[in-house]
Formats: sequence, C-alpha cells, structure tokens
Amino acid sequence: MHRLFAYVSVIKDEMGSMDQEEIYRRAVELVDKARGKLEVRSKVGAADLDGLSIAYTPGVAAPARAVHADKSLQFRYTARASMLAIVTDGTAVLGLGDVGPEAAMVVMEGKGVMLKEFAGADPVPICLCTTDADEIVRTVKNISPSFGFIFLEDIAAPRCFEIERRLSEELDIPVFHDDQHGTAIAICAGLKNVMRLSGRELAAQKIVISGAGASALATAGLLFELGASHIAMADSRGALSSSRPDLDPWKRAVVERSTAPQEERSLAGIMRGADVFIGLSRGGLVSRAMAASMGRDAVIFALANPDPEIMPEDALAAGAKYVGTGRFDYPNTVNNLLAFPGIVRGAMLSRAKHITMRMKLAAVDAIASYVTDEQLSEGFLLPNPLDRHLSESVAAAVASAADA
Amino acid sequence: MHRLFAYVSVIKDEMGSMDQEEIYRRAVELVDKARGKLEVRSKVGAADLDGLSIAYTPGVAAPARAVHADKSLQFRYTARASMLAIVTDGTAVLGLGDVGPEAAMVVMEGKGVMLKEFAGADPVPICLCTTDADEIVRTVKNISPSFGFIFLEDIAAPRCFEIERRLSEELDIPVFHDDQHGTAIAICAGLKNVMRLSGRELAAQKIVISGAGASALATAGLLFELGASHIAMADSRGALSSSRPDLDPWKRAVVERSTAPQEERSLAGIMRGADVFIGLSRGGLVSRAMAASMGRDAVIFALANPDPEIMPEDALAAGAKYVGTGRFDYPNTVNNLLAFPGIVRGAMLSRAKHITMRMKLAAVDAIASYVTDEQLSEGFLLPNPLDRHLSESVAAAVASAADA
Repeated sequence: MHRLFAYVSVIKDEMGSMDQEEIYRRAVELVDKARGKLEVRSKVGAADLDGLSIAYTPGVAAPARAVHADKSLQFRYTARASMLAIVTDGTAVLGLGDVGPEAAMVVMEGKGVMLKEFAGADPVPICLCTTDADEIVRTVKNISPSFGFIFLEDIAAPRCFEIERRLSEELDIPVFHDDQHGTAIAICAGLKNVMRLSGRELAAQKIVISGAGASALATAGLLFELGASHIAMADSRGALSSSRPDLDPWKRAVVERSTAPQEERSLAGIMRGADVFIGLSRGGLVSRAMAASMGRDAVIFALANPDPEIMPEDALAAGAKYVGTGRFDYPNTVNNLLAFPGIVRGAMLSRAKHITMRMKLAAVDAIASYVTDEQLSEGFLLPNPLDRHLSESVAAAVASAADA
Repeated sequence: MHRLFAYVSVIKDEMGSMDQEEIYRRAVELVDKARGKLEVRSKVGAADLDGLSIAYTPGVAAPARAVHADKSLQFRYTARASMLAIVTDGTAVLGLGDVGPEAAMVVMEGKGVMLKEFAGADPVPICLCTTDADEIVRTVKNISPSFGFIFLEDIAAPRCFEIERRLSEELDIPVFHDDQHGTAIAICAGLKNVMRLSGRELAAQKIVISGAGASALATAGLLFELGASHIAMADSRGALSSSRPDLDPWKRAVVERSTAPQEERSLAGIMRGADVFIGLSRGGLVSRAMAASMGRDAVIFALANPDPEIMPEDALAAGAKYVGTGRFDYPNTVNNLLAFPGIVRGAMLSRAKHITMRMKLAAVDAIASYVTDEQLSEGFLLPNPLDRHLSESVAAAVASAADA
C-alpha cells in the first residue's frame, strides 16, 4: 500500500465523528447551557455552625495569623499553589485575532478546561481591558499574591515578549507565555523524533519558518538552543533579511543568529531545497509546487489552525515524508497541549519560581522520548496529546530540571 | 424564669460544640489538608477528541465569534455573570488588622466558601499587593471583563470609600463593599425588628455608634436614610463633634447630619440615656455601668468580633432588653452573612449594573420581615444566618428593587 493511503486510513481511524458545522453548533449549545465552562467550588463544608466556625469565622483567624507570621505558609494554607491566572488582553486569539477581552474569555475558559483536566491547576481567566504593556505588567503584579502561576495567552507580539520578560524578572512565581513556548516545545519534540527516526542531525537541517509572530520567534530561539543554525524565516512581507529596514529587534536577532543565506526574498524562495518547513502563519499559504521544491524526505509541520498552510494529503503527495499539523483530527498533532500541562504541573510540583531554559529543554526531551522506539514512525512522531499520563511524565522531567 | 436565664439556656441550645482552641486547631488542619478552601472546576468534559473539539479547539471559535459580534453574549456564553472577584488589599482584615494580601487570602477563601454556599456565586480571591487607591481602582478596572461582580472586602477606611465610589461610577457591573453595607443592612434589619416588637419609632431613638470605621459610617448613613436623626458616634479618641479638628470628611458628614447634642466628649458620656448602642469597635470597651446608664429597655448590638464590646450576659444584667452580637454562638446574630448573599444573588438575578440605595433598603426590609410575627421576640430579632432560604428571599426583593 502506498504510504499516502496508509496515512489517510490512519486519519479515518483517529478522527472525530463530527464535521465542523456540528462542532460549532454543539460548542455554542454547550456554553449556553452551562453558562461557560468553569466554576469555582468550595473544597470544604460550611453547612452548620461547626462547619462555619472552622471554615469561616472565627476559625480563619488561626491560619491567617500563621500566614501573616510566615508568608510561605500561604502555599500550604490557601489554594495559591494551584491557582493559575490565564492572562490575556484578547489581541491575538488563535484563529480569531484581536477580538477583545470579552470574546477572549470564551477561549480562556476552553484553555482553562485543558489546564484543569491535564495539569490539575485551578485556572482563572483574567481578561484585561487594556493592551498597554506597562499597564498589563502592573496589573498582573498587583494581583499576583492570589496566584501560583501566571499563564500568558493570546497577547500580540512583540508586546508579549516584553510583558513576559518583565513579569518573569519581577515576580517569584512562574510566568509562561504558552503561545511562544508551548508551541516551540511541541515543534522541537517533533523534530527531535524525526531526527531520531531518520538518523539526521538537527544542526545540519535547513529550516524554514513561515510566520514571525510569537510562536515562530520562540521556536527559532529554541531551535538555536538545540543546535540548529540554518533557519530562514518569512513574515507576511516575505523572507527576513538584514537588508530589510522594517524588522523589529526580535526578528533582527533571528536573522543575525542564523547561518542561512539571505538572497531569497519570498517564502517560495527560501523553501527551495529546505529540509524542514514549520508553518505558523496562514492556511493555504504553501502550494504543492512549493512543497515539492523542498529537499528529499522533507519535514512539513503545517500548524496554522484550523486550516494548515498545506493539507497533509497534499504535502505527502508533493513528496514530503514527515507531516504534522496542529489539528487533532490528523496524525502527528504538533500542538502546545503536548507541552503546557506538563510544564505547569512540573513547575507546581517543584514550587519553581521561574520557567528556565533547562526546564523547557527537559520538556522537549520528555515529550519526544515518551514515544517508544517501537511506536516511532512517520505517522507517529509525537505522543497522543490526550494521553493522560503524558503530562505526568513531562512534569516529572520539568520538576527535576527545576530542582537541578 | 428570669429572662437572663432563659437567654443563657437559648445560648446553650444553639451554640456549637467546640471551644475556641479546638476551632482554631481544626481550621488549620482543614486548610492544610485541603490546600485552601476553593478550587476551580470544569463544568464540561474534554476527555476524548469530540469533547475536546467542542470545549476547546476548534469549537471555541463559534461562541467567541458570537461574543465578539455582541459583547452582551459574554454573560451567556462564559461564566462571567457568576464570577465574583473578592478584592482586598489585606489592610483591614476582621479581627486581625493589616496582615497583607497573603494572610488575607485565607480569610477571602473563607468568605468565598460563604459566597458559593449561600449566594451561588463563583468567588475568586483577588488579593492585591498594593494599598494605593488609584492603583487598586486601575487594577480592578483592568481585570473587570472577567467578572460579573466586584466584592470589596477588608480594605481600610477611608480609602475604601473612594475606591468603592470610583469603581461604582466607572464600571457597569455591581461593586459592593461588604464591610460597609453588609454590616449596615444587618444592623438596620435588627433595629427595624426591635421597633416592630416594641412599637417604638426609629426616628425617635437616641442612637450611639461606637467606632467610626467603614461599617460604622455606612451604618450611620443607612440609619439616616431610614429616618433616624439622633446619632452620636465615637472613635478611639472619643465622641465626634464639630469642634474636633481631626475629623475626616466622612466623620464630619455624620456630625453635620446628626441632631444629637455635641457636648459630651466620651463614649460613656454619649451612652448615658441612649436608646440604642451599636458597637463596631473593640472587645470589652463597654462596662456594665455604661450599659446601665442607657435608657429603659435599651438595645445593645455589641458587634466586635470575636469579643463583643460587652458580653450579652452583662448587657442583660445591666438592664438592656434587646441584645445582639456578631457571633454565631449567641442568639440575635447581627452579621453581614444575613445580607451579602441575598444582595449578590439578587444583583446577579437581575443583571443589575449597580447596587443602589433602593436595593439596600429592600434587603433591610426582606431580612427583617423574614422573621414572622410569631417568631419575633427579644431572643429572635433576626433570621438564622444559616437558613438556606433567607438569601433567596432577600435576593428576590433586591432583584425586584433593581428592576424597579
């Protein structure tokens, strides 16, 4: 059987039972009926006088006095350790763009469901009606005593870089911008397994990244850390190069660090002969001809959602060998759901104060090595993101890297 | 049987089974074991691919787009309507004082348990590491798109007045400072029932308020609204009067509005011949002699917690007839738990944008009239705060006043 057909049969086996129309209809029905997706619950009873005396007044005075005397006890006597603020300004919501904080809350609650189910966190959407970086930093700092983890989400680049950097410096609880690092970690784990399967070296790969937003820039950064050096990148105006006067400092840094030649001006140009394509841009941007122009046994991770830069069937037909998308209804789901639950759980486990590069690299390794040698194949490059044990395994690695 | 003994036997029947030592020990044990008292839960499943597609991606796009097109749908498609921020800066925590945001979170979680159990809200402690009024206002405004109700708690006076006023003006979700209004409403409901039982008129009462903090000033304000005019007040430096140069504008306003004479300089002085004593100050401040100097059939609501200004047994022995405390282990519990669940629930029910005076007065009436003519007596002036149906009844009245 031709591997394309084998691939499609895998797709049919794994994909969900609903079409998009039905998913959308049921998604609206679900939130309308349940009034959103998250609720706050009491972990203790207070139905009678004794319960009330212990849970509320006068009982609260005792643990409150203890925390007042030793602030570190807050992590034992309140829910702070697992309370996680999902902070957004609603400016870069996946697939929707700048929709504002009210609409973003729908998405943050969805993310919250994942963070509860897969990371065991207590997620609180914090949707901000300001898009000013200073104001966002101040606000998050002001509310930080209630939270054990700051999870930044869907904040537009390049503002998100400054916000994450300043909060990481100024707070002693972990700050993690998932759009950047969650995606970057999942991609790097996938590439690591392609290298493992094919015997190729990451350092030798000619890598193209389509898109130059938060996730693209973070992916380039993590790839450099892993030894890659030949990284060509394109934004909506074409290939990045030092001759372009319109680059911000973050794009410029990638160009300066990369060994890729800078003659080509278009995405099609930099894709010719490339070994790896990473799409973090727009659906349908890559034609079959562009995919066919890549090197032998190319890797194509077309991660635009819901419509990838090129459909997997087309990528395979054009000669690519290792094909992934960000979707759950195709094999090789390269999605941040692989990464963020383990990062959050691992940081909480170790009571880490920061998310370090060492912790991110540990997550890459843990996700990649979760796929056994027996499992590893073109159609199984990464773990199933819905595997309940994955985040525990990633968390253990992340926690151990945090303690190291 | 002398009514004092009848009274003490009521106390014995109603009080909880534990002493303070045991309550404190179990309060610490409880939070240590459960890691605090609140958790965030998912209301929807996302265990398989179909669940994930509906609850998270790509499903979220549909309700998010709908909210983007019509912001009011956020109250249907997210949990915003019931999400309630318990906002504190930890500067005036009941019975503990200025303990900071970390220790305050213990108390906010306790309050959260009450707000969940009795008001059906989804309470999120927001403990701020700033005590600057401007900064608090900005921060709360910035996070407001996630919340349907701002519940201010344990913020020191007079800062709390400005914060509540500005937030009420600038937000279109209800803002309620419980220490002020919750307490004031409960007190007024109790006094209303004393008037009903005794046939006296509130407008004719000589009222003394010991304490001039947030709850005391709000109580004076609400009493004026209900027709009282003779209100004498004392702070830690003695009786308020227009000759004192140290009064802030809020204390000065009470003095100016009151018809009480201003010759007396001490609490003992203003208590002589008074009909009603309301203690919102410190335990043990009122001697038997001071209580005995009051008018015939005096009302003594000694609400300092956990130790009242005068113990009920002593107040009764000194000749007072209507005696209440803030405690749950004595009859006539004059506690904000009587008021805030109904206010919150009623505001949520009616989707009110502000808490108006009309809504507060409706709450006073609803609490007072919840006690039937058959029940009403010296030992039963107010409903049992643990009565599950009370908040529904208050909520209905508050919602109807909001719509009016």
